[in-house]
Amino acid sequence: MRTILVIGAGKSSSSLIRYLLNKSEEENLQVIVADAVLQVAKSKIQKHKNGYAIKLDVSNKAERQKAIQQATIVISMLPARMHLIIAKDCLVFNKNLVTASYISNEMKALNTEAIEKKLVFMNEVGLDPGIDHMSAMKVIDTIRKKGGKMLLFESFTGGLVAPTSDNNLWNYKFTWNPRNVVLAGQGGASKFLQEGKYKYIPYHKLFRRTEILTIDGYGKFEAYANRDSLKYRNAYGLKDILTLYRGTIRRVGFSRAWNIFVQLGMTDDSYTIEDSENMSYRDFTNSFLAYSPNDSVELKLRHYLKIDQDDIIWDKLLELDIFNATKKVELKNATPAQILEKILKESWTLKEDEKDMIVMQHLFGYELNGEQKQIESSMVCIGDNQIYTAMAKTVGLPVAIATLKILNGEIKTSGVQIPISKEIYNPILEELKENGIVFIEKEVPYLGYNPESIIG
Amino acid sequence: MRTILVIGAGKSSSSLIRYLLNKSEEENLQVIVADAVLQVAKSKIQKHKNGYAIKLDVSNKAERQKAIQQATIVISMLPARMHLIIAKDCLVFNKNLVTASYISNEMKALNTEAIEKKLVFMNEVGLDPGIDHMSAMKVIDTIRKKGGKMLLFESFTGGLVAPTSDNNLWNYKFTWNPRNVVLAGQGGASKFLQEGKYKYIPYHKLFRRTEILTIDGYGKFEAYANRDSLKYRNAYGLKDILTLYRGTIRRVGFSRAWNIFVQLGMTDDSYTIEDSENMSYRDFTNSFLAYSPNDSVELKLRHYLKIDQDDIIWDKLLELDIFNATKKVELKNATPAQILEKILKESWTLKEDEKDMIVMQHLFGYELNGEQKQIESSMVCIGDNQIYTAMAKTVGLPVAIATLKILNGEIKTSGVQIPISKEIYNPILEELKENGIVFIEKEVPYLGYNPESIIG
Repeated sequence: MRTILVIGAGKSSSSLIRYLLNKSEEENLQVIVADAVLQVAKSKIQKHKNGYAIKLDVSNKAERQKAIQQATIVISMLPARMHLIIAKDCLVFNKNLVTASYISNEMKALNTEAIEKKLVFMNEVGLDPGIDHMSAMKVIDTIRKKGGKMLLFESFTGGLVAPTSDNNLWNYKFTWNPRNVVLAGQGGASKFLQEGKYKYIPYHKLFRRTEILTIDGYGKFEAYANRDSLKYRNAYGLKDILTLYRGTIRRVGFSRAWNIFVQLGMTDDSYTIEDSENMSYRDFTNSFLAYSPNDSVELKLRHYLKIDQDDIIWDKLLELDIFNATKKVELKNATPAQILEKILKESWTLKEDEKDMIVMQHLFGYELNGEQKQIESSMVCIGDNQIYTAMAKTVGLPVAIATLKILNGEIKTSGVQIPISKEIYNPILEELKENGIVFIEKEVPYLGYNPESIIG
Repeated sequence: MRTILVIGAGKSSSSLIRYLLNKSEEENLQVIVADAVLQVAKSKIQKHKNGYAIKLDVSNKAERQKAIQQATIVISMLPARMHLIIAKDCLVFNKNLVTASYISNEMKALNTEAIEKKLVFMNEVGLDPGIDHMSAMKVIDTIRKKGGKMLLFESFTGGLVAPTSDNNLWNYKFTWNPRNVVLAGQGGASKFLQEGKYKYIPYHKLFRRTEILTIDGYGKFEAYANRDSLKYRNAYGLKDILTLYRGTIRRVGFSRAWNIFVQLGMTDDSYTIEDSENMSYRDFTNSFLAYSPNDSVELKLRHYLKIDQDDIIWDKLLELDIFNATKKVELKNATPAQILEKILKESWTLKEDEKDMIVMQHLFGYELNGEQKQIESSMVCIGDNQIYTAMAKTVGLPVAIATLKILNGEIKTSGVQIPISKEIYNPILEELKENGIVFIEKEVPYLGYNPESIIG
């Protein structure tokens, strides 16, 4: 029997663990699920006969090394900053490792030793990063094989609410870490390439520079630019590409309304608000507006941000109850971002029977035999319920599939790596398809960088 | 003979040194001016018989301690971060110390030892901080003595161009460190009190939340909020005050135009622009605008920031030549802020015969015998030329005056301090008046916080 150790049994591990347990008979697997809270690990196994839940405090060296030593391969689903300690143990005990996180510089530094020991340290093999790498490289490699020259690559991903559960004015609910949603885009200007020119968008303009995309059967979406669209330029071999843009997908209209919070300063996480605990939601809103002896908070906000009488943005703000004078913030020494997160959670939390949705789209512009062409590749995944969410499926299944292929020797190139070579992405994408994660590719007219798709 | 050691002979030391040399006969003074560059020190002394220029590398302990040991009192006009090393030597050799800089936490930590050794470490005795403390506390103490209760304190300071040299559309030229002007307001939200409510303005809105002030004989000005208006609440004894606001003065219209740079992202100092060296000014501007195959940089900017055809802002931008396609940036790996600074310097550098101006205004609202009253106190100082600038006079003279009063035993309270007690500010303000730095106080109607004075 082969032993897979899954460290971290949070939300994103459910589909991963189910997949491995379902395969455990035919593949002769024992799946050990380790978590700081034993009950969390147990709940993911659901008494499957090949599953074993253990309590593991990863800061306890003896406990941690004992678990890793007994495994054939290790999956770390811990928060990204905690992978390194696991990776170092994997080097000590000669274990392969799989994670869904970005490769840190510290992880990258282990590459030589991993290669020497013939170990596979596969990272960025979740959704984003992960499925985006694989699905994009498949098309890029195909274009190159035909002799095409890449001109444009745009890639968009978003975690949204499923259409059947899409019942608020924002067409948005939290399907992942709300804090990350509130802080999205902060920490510096966004950078990308348009038709050979570097472009920079400061945070306070990010949500007013969205692009529009359409996904067949699902309608229109918008996307705002990620911090660094150029990150994979070299890894994808796109050194001379003219347009390179990566963005986060929302439903149309979200960003224009979200911009109100940005403009007010409500997403700031760098300082605490005086006496936040005893403030009402209305006080909170008012703290970003000038004093007036006569005017209401409502009118001051409308005037300050020039919101027209009949603008739907206004209804979106009302829906969140930000002018409520009786609801209290009840958070001590809270930052604006923490208070906003609390307010949003009241409106944007999925109800028990509601489902999430993952949307991804890539655009590939290229030149072949003097002709300019474009391919559009799109994927939509809907969650089954609140355990096997679209997020859990799209993050966890590629991790699980990659793990099994490493275990079976189908993936064997050693070193610290991401899934961008054909030998890796082809079989994983094939099996994702069987599990309902399907990319639909189609030829579309080459538009280059299409200014018509920009809002305002 | 008493020896005054002035360390640092930069721009802000000229009036200070001249004042001390002028007093040297009657006060029996020898003035040693130490600078890293001997010629700079010499130029400030102009061969006065009681002045001595020395070359001093403050990082050289022996050199530094020798100079300090020989002095009766030390003035440090070095950059703020370098005062500490001087202060520690002053403790070793039992010398009083005067600086024009904010008290750092490290400086504050020397207080007990300074008191034990009966040493005066006078800080924040320049313009701002300095003259602002003294002129404000004089009025506040007077109001309190009459039994008045402070309701409002607003304080504004600005370094501007003198009216006779005010000949560009921005009504602004650099009269001090240009880099600080470009970065002004960054690093977090501005915080202040209005009618008992805490208010917060994010950086990207700072220049759209200005207040208007008028100074008799000089017309209208505007001010944007400083980062922390509450800094001296306790030191000034204003714990229960309703309105507390400190701001930076510009001519009316400056901030609305400056906001264009903020909105574009041109004041960002946190990342470098790709290939900045070979960019034209036009390329630089275009890098903050979306790509378009048809539209001009000009139209894209007008559209993006909604600048009307006949808006004077546009002429201000043209005056700076930001659409010039032939002028090159010529700075390697430059941040947006560094590039903007270079562009602005070409337009905003004072010509040889041009003069600067310092403007300060305080508003004091208070209640006395059930009546609400207000005092307005204003000061304008115009530079003599480009050596004895208004900035050099207002920073240097209070430092020089304080130094002499410490030397003569008129100021003797020991410890690390700022000039907010009557015994200190009264004689200094008197002598500043004799030197042309005059506050004009007048009673005005109490307006409380006046929303009419806010723009947009």
